Amino acid sequence: MELPLEFQRIARHFAPLAGEGALGLTDDAAVLASIPGQLVLSADAMVEGVHFPAGEAPDLVARKLLRTNLSDLAAMGARPLGYLLTIAVPRTTDEAWFAGFAAGLAADQAEFGLKLLGGDSTSTPGPVTVSLTILGTAHAVLRRVGAREGDDVWVSGTIGDAALGLLALGGEVADPDGFLVDRYRLPQPRLELGRRLVGIAHAAMDVSDGLVQDLGHLCRAAGLGAVVEAARVPASPAARAAGPGHLVRRLTGGDDYELLFAAAPAARDAVERAASACGTPVMRVGRFRAAPACVTVLDERGAEIALARGGWSHFDAAEP
Amino acid sequence: MELPLEFQRIARHFAPLAGEGALGLTDDAAVLASIPGQLVLSADAMVEGVHFPAGEAPDLVARKLLRTNLSDLAAMGARPLGYLLTIAVPRTTDEAWFAGFAAGLAADQAEFGLKLLGGDSTSTPGPVTVSLTILGTAHAVLRRVGAREGDDVWVSGTIGDAALGLLALGGEVADPDGFLVDRYRLPQPRLELGRRLVGIAHAAMDVSDGLVQDLGHLCRAAGLGAVVEAARVPASPAARAAGPGHLVRRLTGGDDYELLFAAAPAARDAVERAASACGTPVMRVGRFRAAPACVTVLDERGAEIALARGGWSHFDAAEP
Repeated sequence: MELPLEFQRIARHFAPLAGEGALGLTDDAAVLASIPGQLVLSADAMVEGVHFPAGEAPDLVARKLLRTNLSDLAAMGARPLGYLLTIAVPRTTDEAWFAGFAAGLAADQAEFGLKLLGGDSTSTPGPVTVSLTILGTAHAVLRRVGAREGDDVWVSGTIGDAALGLLALGGEVADPDGFLVDRYRLPQPRLELGRRLVGIAHAAMDVSDGLVQDLGHLCRAAGLGAVVEAARVPASPAARAAGPGHLVRRLTGGDDYELLFAAAPAARDAVERAASACGTPVMRVGRFRAAPACVTVLDERGAEIALARGGWSHFDAAEP
Repeated sequence: MELPLEFQRIARHFAPLAGEGALGLTDDAAVLASIPGQLVLSADAMVEGVHFPAGEAPDLVARKLLRTNLSDLAAMGARPLGYLLTIAVPRTTDEAWFAGFAAGLAADQAEFGLKLLGGDSTSTPGPVTVSLTILGTAHAVLRRVGAREGDDVWVSGTIGDAALGLLALGGEVADPDGFLVDRYRLPQPRLELGRRLVGIAHAAMDVSDGLVQDLGHLCRAAGLGAVVEAARVPASPAARAAGPGHLVRRLTGGDDYELLFAAAPAARDAVERAASACGTPVMRVGRFRAAPACVTVLDERGAEIALARGGWSHFDAAEP
């Protein structure tokens, strides 16, 4: 009795990615014998044409999916353990797509140190739709709640590259060396920085829906407001080359997957040492203040910059 | 700053479903402080028009998704702990759909004793696509591998109702009281039976792709063949009323979510007592034998019944 194609594909492409608890992907579930510390869990989905362009290389789809989930672990200060994956693809999807998708997972499994634990594959009459649940471990975690009045607002890396990368894909922004598009396609989860910030930062999250909107979440969780100095928000050379006309887009565009966190002014040295130890740049961009839960962005003259909308939401009327 | 619609929806419909470790669904990840015993994990996805009819009531979509995953825990003998959920729905999806979907989850959370831990919602230009990762706990688990030569083949409940229910939805089978359609729409995960079979059954799985195909998995895992007596495969009154012409469909059709398991003849009493204690009927339908990993189905005269294909696979050429 020959194995149906679905199971042949699992055996060929996915079983080599499986970790010990996955039982070779041939059982009804994975079994993990014991979890060291606390178990940290998150899930994210991506849809072709929404989160990645139609026809995107399958290895990049896989890696972006894994990395957006890894970024959630980074935001909690957790260490990657494993993941479960469900993929819905058109029935015409060929072997090369599956091979490429699995190759992307294999590359990032090696880079970030985690294994496939289980999942499901199915056909769909619609766009490629992939979903991933990630598991991590931590002895103590970072939370979104906890920012205090007077805390500094910090970000890692550079902000707004991914939003400009999306514009570059549409030909609206010049991106001669492809840096901006790469930042959109392949986020860099800040796992080591997240782990090092446990015990230093008062609150943290990753920037997935745009700096302003995501900072709004930290504000609401704390019952505080925040002021951001636009000139301090770090821009990559490629973003600077794109020109100052994109400032609002950089502040409100999603998909950066940098860390956004609150820490006391007394912890500035500790933050900088943590960042330096893992080679991830960080920048103070503002501060939390006693105010309604609202994010104010100031230009170099101290005047408020008007923002029509805070960031990305899947169901709001006006989307980029 | 008003919350974007996506987060309003999470707060309104999903936060009330959240368990303790979910942190109110407002953090980047869930955190579970300690897991009693082994952690059991599985993930399944469902696509509108593939796993459920277009326009299906949202509470039924939610409950079927949760129950197909619970059935994987049942097959491992695990106890439900919680789940993460990702949903991709068209942007035109209204509040009533979300409310109905959440109501279905709430009903089954109460029935099966588990809580929402996290997830993601997004828009899609395609069909409703939902994915769920379930977590369970167990001190010892059932596995697919382990059937021995001479073991009985057992099933729970009745077999083939869901496949006939799908035909009934298309008007191809009479289903006057809707029993068959209900069996397709709302599987009954055999959680208590699964737990009670730990230490009794040598191998187990749930019947999701059809009895013959799924029994083939137990055979391959054991390096054995199996013989099934068709007349012993339990049929519901509604399936019997549909007529004997549907026998092959019943044996190869998916979506029953009954348990299929191997146990030694010496364990027959123990199996029946376990089944009786939880009110779930079980039936011996055949036995494992030393033979190539192949399932043979015999009619009442002992003649082999020809089966064109073993069961459901998402990517094979001929699908029902």
